[in-house]
Amino acid sequence: MTNLDALLDDLVVANRILAGLGVVDGFGHVSVRHPERPDRYFLSRSLAPEQVTHDDLMMFDLASVPQNGDRRAPYLERFIHGEIYARRPDVAAVVHSHAAAVVPFAASTVELKPIYHMSSFLHLGAPVFEIREKFGMTDMLIRNSAQGAALAETMDKRAVVLMRGHGYCTVGADIPEAVFRAYYTQLNAELQQRAIGLGGEIRFLTNEEGALYDETNRKVIGRPWELWKDKFGPTR
Amino acid sequence: MTNLDALLDDLVVANRILAGLGVVDGFGHVSVRHPERPDRYFLSRSLAPEQVTHDDLMMFDLASVPQNGDRRAPYLERFIHGEIYARRPDVAAVVHSHAAAVVPFAASTVELKPIYHMSSFLHLGAPVFEIREKFGMTDMLIRNSAQGAALAETMDKRAVVLMRGHGYCTVGADIPEAVFRAYYTQLNAELQQRAIGLGGEIRFLTNEEGALYDETNRKVIGRPWELWKDKFGPTR
Amino acid sequence: MTNLDALLDDLVVANRILAGLGVVDGFGHVSVRHPERPDRYFLSRSLAPEQVTHDDLMMFDLASVPQNGDRRAPYLERFIHGEIYARRPDVAAVVHSHAAAVVPFAASTVELKPIYHMSSFLHLGAPVFEIREKFGMTDMLIRNSAQGAALAETMDKRAVVLMRGHGYCTVGADIPEAVFRAYYTQLNAELQQRAIGLGGEIRFLTNEEGALYDETNRKVIGRPWELWKDKFGPTR
Amino acid sequence: MTNLDALLDDLVVANRILAGLGVVDGFGHVSVRHPERPDRYFLSRSLAPEQVTHDDLMMFDLASVPQNGDRRAPYLERFIHGEIYARRPDVAAVVHSHAAAVVPFAASTVELKPIYHMSSFLHLGAPVFEIREKFGMTDMLIRNSAQGAALAETMDKRAVVLMRGHGYCTVGADIPEAVFRAYYTQLNAELQQRAIGLGGEIRFLTNEEGALYDETNRKVIGRPWELWKDKFGPTR
Repeated sequence: MTNLDALLDDLVVANRILAGLGVVDGFGHVSVRHPERPDRYFLSRSLAPEQVTHDDLMMFDLASVPQNGDRRAPYLERFIHGEIYARRPDVAAVVHSHAAAVVPFAASTVELKPIYHMSSFLHLGAPVFEIREKFGMTDMLIRNSAQGAALAETMDKRAVVLMRGHGYCTVGADIPEAVFRAYYTQLNAELQQRAIGLGGEIRFLTNEEGALYDETNRKVIGRPWELWKDKFGPTR
Repeated sequence: MTNLDALLDDLVVANRILAGLGVVDGFGHVSVRHPERPDRYFLSRSLAPEQVTHDDLMMFDLASVPQNGDRRAPYLERFIHGEIYARRPDVAAVVHSHAAAVVPFAASTVELKPIYHMSSFLHLGAPVFEIREKFGMTDMLIRNSAQGAALAETMDKRAVVLMRGHGYCTVGADIPEAVFRAYYTQLNAELQQRAIGLGGEIRFLTNEEGALYDETNRKVIGRPWELWKDKFGPTR
Repeated sequence: MTNLDALLDDLVVANRILAGLGVVDGFGHVSVRHPERPDRYFLSRSLAPEQVTHDDLMMFDLASVPQNGDRRAPYLERFIHGEIYARRPDVAAVVHSHAAAVVPFAASTVELKPIYHMSSFLHLGAPVFEIREKFGMTDMLIRNSAQGAALAETMDKRAVVLMRGHGYCTVGADIPEAVFRAYYTQLNAELQQRAIGLGGEIRFLTNEEGALYDETNRKVIGRPWELWKDKFGPTR
Repeated sequence: MTNLDALLDDLVVANRILAGLGVVDGFGHVSVRHPERPDRYFLSRSLAPEQVTHDDLMMFDLASVPQNGDRRAPYLERFIHGEIYARRPDVAAVVHSHAAAVVPFAASTVELKPIYHMSSFLHLGAPVFEIREKFGMTDMLIRNSAQGAALAETMDKRAVVLMRGHGYCTVGADIPEAVFRAYYTQLNAELQQRAIGLGGEIRFLTNEEGALYDETNRKVIGRPWELWKDKFGPTR
């Protein structure tokens, strides 16, 4: 098996993990950048993540045009991926999700903040992309490069961007990191909501604490990844 | 297999999906209009949706009288279906449910509104049917054509109607759309409740955004439907 | 199989259903009155409900003394059952549970009220038993006939009694009714809490609506019971 | 099988139970003190609890140094265990977790208090350890003996200590008690949050009620333990 094949297997695994963890349902997607060609990325054809297999993967350029004459129906919102890859050389994987706990923050004036170390990547903030600002009335989807670019610009150097009336995206230096962040963004939203419900004062992580753990996390992220692979991966 | 048989198979699948998704439990039901005879519809005999098979389906006229001398016990509330079909030529499928997240909105003065594109069909509103208004003290059930008619009139041209102290109904141009709306009504209720809990201001979809996505949804609804069929359908 | 054997099988089924529905965990219990000897009842030996089999059932008199020289360890709180049976000739089954959604109401000054028809049996109220009133500082358990009697007196003619800092009990004219009420007490607590969280006004069922549906429920309760038996019963 | 082997099997079971109950996910750990050498304890190598087997267990001294030249990667936070064992001769088992319901209390000024008998061990309080006080900006982890000692001192004689921006620890006189407390700390957090959401006044257990049930619990704890072992243990 080539390195590329192993990576694409991991992309299939990531689809199953995100479904197994409840981060995605019939909607949502995850992509990976081509390891040798930074101007290409891989993403499934339009399919529920839980059903994605190796054969469903398609290759796109950064304009999100399918390569090799692939005529299968792609996700309408593939431009999310292409435009983030175009602006973020540090990013090798992107997740887009509508996870239930996160959408309320995307619709609210209350800011998502890191309540514990597991979501320390939120110390850079999680701005809300308001599609209405530049594009007026839409069907809320990221349907072209201009919309994808606007979203990527709102995200800027951060790990997470929320999308008003829609969902959110996370990025990572590799597939496990993007998946980890998608899962823990959801969990942080759940936990922050619960903390608000208690009615007391809340102490969030400081930026420094967030940055310090974010570094540590790279060393321990293999632990949940191996667990998730074992529980939700397609070979089981 | 005839077209009608395939449709009835889909009705069985819809029963299983609604149970699998937690939209219905021991109660709740889903029907489909006869494709060739708009004055007839199909609905299971009185049975928990999770247990419904092809053989349990009964045919009714729009007065909700069982056809072909079928003497099996029907659902007490079949009039919901008959009266909606009588008033809504655009509707080919109806779901009735008591899903936990929705009942609180049916008991509250707080209005259910679309918090994200997946529940954009709520942009037409989700009025609360108050059975007490016309019928005084009842056991809360829709037990006859007059009660079904009053419910259908409250629903009017909308996709959803809530029922005070009871549950809700959704409709669709086909089975997947009615099921999709039943599921995402529930999810929207959950998300809106969470957003309220955050204590900030909430930005809902505008009517125009809702209408635009509702159109888009018809093109992508096959994706969750195929997933749900695969996960919850009776052949698995 | 005798009628009594069939009834005891149903008691085993009830244990599994309550565990399957999440109404009980390692704790909680369900009993049935002897159909021919109203001064006797059946209850498992001290065991998690999910593990109860026919052989684990013990017979007690209304003073909650094990019969036939049975020396196995009984539940410490069997007096709940004996004292309710002693005061309620209309009751043939009793459930005791610590279900998560209900305990907060047992600890709160906010009253549990019927938010929809499924929990209409709450129209008679669900008073909170405060063990401290008569018995001062205790380990919170119902450990003798005097404590059981005080609990049964607080319950009086109702379907449900809450227990401060502990849990609740439901009764029924038969096993399915007591189980149904245990499940829907829990669901009503969940729904009422959600409705409170919305921040608007809440319309509960009137006493008359509650009484009317309670009557109807006896005719449809077989539907969830058959489903639950099929899903959680020990023969599967 | 020696006594030690049986105990280590129980430690494996505890790992699986904590994962099965949702108390731990990819992170979290549980240890047991050596029954014959109070200055030694056992803990898995760095691994998700759900994947731990007998062979993954390592032995440590109270400085949390691996024994017998074991060079496998240990948990970064093993110092939690060593420092608690060093200060608490009454403790034979320690659990560390990030369970979702508890983290909000660790980030809030609202105190965790026993809402029912099952969490009566909270009557001694559940103080929040603030790592920032002594150690300034960190990655939030307990990475050395000094940090572990500070945590153990905050815990003092109690059953539970919360960790700001991180999670919590529970201890017990044996493995089942530490696991029981980890699970019911989580459940109490969930229940207390729900009770706060109701908006009324809340009556918690008094210290005396808590102490009395805590005694009783030792006699009935085998019941949930046997259930959990049966449901989640590795031999199934």
